[in-house]
Amino acid sequence: MLGKIILEEAFALPRLEEKTRWWAGMFSTDPETHVQEIQDLNDLRIKHADKHGVGYQILSYTTPGVQDIWDQKEAQALALEINDFVAEKLKQFPDHLGAFATLSMHDPKEAAAELRRTVTEYGFKGALVNDTQRSGPDGDDMIFYDNPKWDVFWETCTELDVPVYIHPRNPTGTIYEKLWKDRSWLVGPPLSFAQGVSLHVLGMVTNGVFDRNPKLQIIIGHMGEHIPFDMWRINHWFEDRKKLLGLDCKKTIREYFNENIWITTSGHFSTTTLNFCLAEVSSDRILFSVDYPFETFEDGCTWFDNAELNTRDRLKIGRENAKNLFKLEEYKDSDAKVI
Amino acid sequence: MLGKIILEEAFALPRLEEKTRWWAGMFSTDPETHVQEIQDLNDLRIKHADKHGVGYQILSYTTPGVQDIWDQKEAQALALEINDFVAEKLKQFPDHLGAFATLSMHDPKEAAAELRRTVTEYGFKGALVNDTQRSGPDGDDMIFYDNPKWDVFWETCTELDVPVYIHPRNPTGTIYEKLWKDRSWLVGPPLSFAQGVSLHVLGMVTNGVFDRNPKLQIIIGHMGEHIPFDMWRINHWFEDRKKLLGLDCKKTIREYFNENIWITTSGHFSTTTLNFCLAEVSSDRILFSVDYPFETFEDGCTWFDNAELNTRDRLKIGRENAKNLFKLEEYKDSDAKVI
Amino acid sequence: MLGKIILEEAFALPRLEEKTRWWAGMFSTDPETHVQEIQDLNDLRIKHADKHGVGYQILSYTTPGVQDIWDQKEAQALALEINDFVAEKLKQFPDHLGAFATLSMHDPKEAAAELRRTVTEYGFKGALVNDTQRSGPDGDDMIFYDNPKWDVFWETCTELDVPVYIHPRNPTGTIYEKLWKDRSWLVGPPLSFAQGVSLHVLGMVTNGVFDRNPKLQIIIGHMGEHIPFDMWRINHWFEDRKKLLGLDCKKTIREYFNENIWITTSGHFSTTTLNFCLAEVSSDRILFSVDYPFETFEDGCTWFDNAELNTRDRLKIGRENAKNLFKLEEYKDSDAKVI
Amino acid sequence: MLGKIILEEAFALPRLEEKTRWWAGMFSTDPETHVQEIQDLNDLRIKHADKHGVGYQILSYTTPGVQDIWDQKEAQALALEINDFVAEKLKQFPDHLGAFATLSMHDPKEAAAELRRTVTEYGFKGALVNDTQRSGPDGDDMIFYDNPKWDVFWETCTELDVPVYIHPRNPTGTIYEKLWKDRSWLVGPPLSFAQGVSLHVLGMVTNGVFDRNPKLQIIIGHMGEHIPFDMWRINHWFEDRKKLLGLDCKKTIREYFNENIWITTSGHFSTTTLNFCLAEVSSDRILFSVDYPFETFEDGCTWFDNAELNTRDRLKIGRENAKNLFKLEEYKDSDAKVI
Repeated sequence: MLGKIILEEAFALPRLEEKTRWWAGMFSTDPETHVQEIQDLNDLRIKHADKHGVGYQILSYTTPGVQDIWDQKEAQALALEINDFVAEKLKQFPDHLGAFATLSMHDPKEAAAELRRTVTEYGFKGALVNDTQRSGPDGDDMIFYDNPKWDVFWETCTELDVPVYIHPRNPTGTIYEKLWKDRSWLVGPPLSFAQGVSLHVLGMVTNGVFDRNPKLQIIIGHMGEHIPFDMWRINHWFEDRKKLLGLDCKKTIREYFNENIWITTSGHFSTTTLNFCLAEVSSDRILFSVDYPFETFEDGCTWFDNAELNTRDRLKIGRENAKNLFKLEEYKDSDAKVI
Repeated sequence: MLGKIILEEAFALPRLEEKTRWWAGMFSTDPETHVQEIQDLNDLRIKHADKHGVGYQILSYTTPGVQDIWDQKEAQALALEINDFVAEKLKQFPDHLGAFATLSMHDPKEAAAELRRTVTEYGFKGALVNDTQRSGPDGDDMIFYDNPKWDVFWETCTELDVPVYIHPRNPTGTIYEKLWKDRSWLVGPPLSFAQGVSLHVLGMVTNGVFDRNPKLQIIIGHMGEHIPFDMWRINHWFEDRKKLLGLDCKKTIREYFNENIWITTSGHFSTTTLNFCLAEVSSDRILFSVDYPFETFEDGCTWFDNAELNTRDRLKIGRENAKNLFKLEEYKDSDAKVI
Repeated sequence: MLGKIILEEAFALPRLEEKTRWWAGMFSTDPETHVQEIQDLNDLRIKHADKHGVGYQILSYTTPGVQDIWDQKEAQALALEINDFVAEKLKQFPDHLGAFATLSMHDPKEAAAELRRTVTEYGFKGALVNDTQRSGPDGDDMIFYDNPKWDVFWETCTELDVPVYIHPRNPTGTIYEKLWKDRSWLVGPPLSFAQGVSLHVLGMVTNGVFDRNPKLQIIIGHMGEHIPFDMWRINHWFEDRKKLLGLDCKKTIREYFNENIWITTSGHFSTTTLNFCLAEVSSDRILFSVDYPFETFEDGCTWFDNAELNTRDRLKIGRENAKNLFKLEEYKDSDAKVI
Repeated sequence: MLGKIILEEAFALPRLEEKTRWWAGMFSTDPETHVQEIQDLNDLRIKHADKHGVGYQILSYTTPGVQDIWDQKEAQALALEINDFVAEKLKQFPDHLGAFATLSMHDPKEAAAELRRTVTEYGFKGALVNDTQRSGPDGDDMIFYDNPKWDVFWETCTELDVPVYIHPRNPTGTIYEKLWKDRSWLVGPPLSFAQGVSLHVLGMVTNGVFDRNPKLQIIIGHMGEHIPFDMWRINHWFEDRKKLLGLDCKKTIREYFNENIWITTSGHFSTTTLNFCLAEVSSDRILFSVDYPFETFEDGCTWFDNAELNTRDRLKIGRENAKNLFKLEEYKDSDAKVI
């Protein structure tokens, strides 16, 4: 399929190359290529895209990024630096590259203001945050965005009519780290990423964020961070109990997934899982994505282009849903047919 | 279907009724009935079973049970009390009730010895442990069973040729509790249970427990505690990296699930999920279970008996797999036909 | 779910009651109730609908109906009688009942003219034909509508912007009948119905009907009359060969199913099959239907309302897709929420 | 996966090369290669197998073969010629090639005798027949094997403990041909093959063949010739009616599929369909096959080896089920691991 749109695609600041290289050494089978790819905002990324039928990419700052910085001022400064940096870079390829805002999440109003600035001034497509914000004197505390204090931020999102992508971050904090240190192979894609995001997003559900902000649109990657698997179980448990025991959710978990939450295919190129999500989430709420450069365009696009899927859902998941969500009417896909 | 076998079915000691009642108040819509049902090892349980076509049940002590007791001696004493208590109760219904051993998991040798005692003396069918063992002076530490020190326990399991059911326990520990306290509706079936057990079981995989104990049989409930959903993603991540980055697993995650791990349907009565697990896990490794009295016989059995499923898999999942795993040749299912 | 729309719902002329009774005796376990139900265009049907959350029904004349009459004049006279009859009956329940035109399919122009009359004068929602039209001196010939001669009819359908439902008819003709007579249990839902309609619809595909009439909308029942099952196989066979061997289809079979063909759930209340069709056909092209009175409202609606399905697809399949296809903007579903 | 076993693999007699070439011209994009491949019983076939991890193939005479010959004596002579021919050829590769008997199906006793001869003298693995036997003065009649007259044949199959593969044949007969001639693109894999075999096999079900021969094992290709798609619908229709209306089947359609019928993947390399069949038929009754040379080893094996599937089912479907069914204990698969 030509003209695909992808949206969990990471970049890193070249001035932080040493950190990027150290990080890459922990998971990448080819760290140097990884460093080169994640720092590129230019020809390499476009070349991959052209080769694999991707027409438009929404870029975001790599994990853990600003969410790893527990000093508020430092975090805010880095967020602004990143946003200004990428805004400048995007100018070269306005038809092919967009960006999610990078935000310091220490303070809801500050986060809202920077989102507003980048959306209105730079045309950013929303924001991507890496799960909870580390905070506290030693970075051991974690700020969740699921309590009413954060409504000022969510209201700005709905006012600007842009979605927020909740991306994973590595587990931190004394006990949490102990759990994962002895099973470090599970940090990241195999387990910790989904555990973090599913806790955060289901926290938003049960703490009423979507009830107070019914138009809010949240995106989560990796086919939904395990939540679709337990859609029946969560629904069953909540619907049996919420009236009697006081869970104060207005809607069912299935309704939040159909009205407020989108899932992407990033890093999970499985047709069996995709078909399961067609049943549990609906093709109207699934978006194709790669997770480059942690995954390759080739793996992601070859899978999606050849997945056994009806033509209509391939178009919706591959492009049309994203065009509508991000209001990409200007996106030139005249040559973007299914192949 | 008649003659079904179920194996995640909880009981509690009557002498701890007050604790049971307090616990029930947190999740049950009818705490008094719950207290009555979980303390019954007699007519009530058999009556439910008869009504819903269950022929044989393997009972286990309810969560968090002994895994919640961080004093080793106290834990061991409670485990012995529970095992002796249930062994006596089972005598009434030898054709219909069996038990998993309850174990203090502070010390591998002690756990192994009590498993051996209960299997050889009482005919217990294996053990069920509630995730990690709380330990340390304040119960803030958690003992995982995924390091070589625990091989002496796993070797006893394989020598006795009995499986171990790894059941969830509530999250404990300073930071861990902070995460969950503000989103308490997610503690238990909606999220925390699966997060705990999947970390433990995947820790066993990556820390080599199954490589060192290739015949070990582990059972996990709730359709696999989220792991099947990410079978592709885990496999993809590990198989790309393990040779280069040093993950020392001899087999693929799919192979461990086909050779060492069983999943049950407890508390997850979804045919969509079951069909997904047929593809990702195989009907040869799935076992029907209810999770009584947290779930009802009616919900579980009505679902399973009416689920759209081929006859052969219904028989395997409903009874035959369990008969083989637990060596229940003596199980009289002459009247146990599919209905 | 309230406010469901259904569209493969049969009625019969009371003056042909004896024929209806004879017919019912061949398959119905309760022929008298069947005769009563199929002749009712009034309270009984509305009562069933109210009880089971159906808000709007599109009625059609029962099989084999006019397609069984090989005398052209007689067929045309019966079609007109049926259309006038049902148009009169509908007036009582304009918000709850609609109709498909009944057509004699001996002559394309005559069929087109009657379709136009009933759509423009009576507000019919399209037509339903019972597979091939019997013709010839002994009724042994069968008229297919898949050759260019029939384009005049299909052009009228697209001009009026109404769909045609291709419903099964019993197999007739010397050899054909011999095949089925010795295995009469397979006539109807178990096999012959799907064989007839799939031949006809795939004949339309390979004989270019949809290429010549790219806006034509066809509906088939029973989850697609077996065709979705072989979507891969048909696509594979055609796409490998059509360029070299001269099959003159402009699109793939998957594209015709996404652009020209709708499937309904009539008489096939299986979530496993529905999930398969979500993958092979897309929830955008599936419509709920019952097949009353051959199936009961209770069986169909209880299944659909309780099927494990995401909320969005349930709404689309249960009502929204039909509202769009049949331009039922006036359909009052203010009380038509999912329950 | 190495060591795969396949069983719908065709050959043709070299002396009938002109007929083979004419036939190939109707569907093959490369008729000369097809002629070469189907006549080869030697290096070419083994070379393909080695390249794609196939360890053992059961060969059968190509369709329509002897079932196309309506003169009984001629049919019987050809069957014997084919069986003697292939038996001689197999001697070269006893560890890698086996055969199904080719049978004239004009007379049950004659067919039974030739099956017995080839199984006991040549070690054939069962028989493969191409749907109905053409008969009558002009070949317009079709002999079905679903009436009691044929029990003598089926009894011989169960006595010898060998399965019969019911393979498609092209539709013949006056009206039948008329239906298909005007839509000739549907003859073969897209539609007619499945329609013929599903009628025959479901005829065997409803006419009591499996009730009278409860140990009979039948194999059908192409993922079950559409029948699994309607498993729910057939079951629903029959089980509601058989007691009241007199269908004399002892078991449900699901039971016949679990006890008497096997399906193969020949020519239908779709994981979506395979997953559906895991739910409706069970991995215990599915056998991998290619349908060479109508399909390529590359298409079939590349699909199967890479299909998202659990390890256990891949082994069962790819080899273990066939080893058990055909009693291939002697099959050397020491090097036949999953790759």
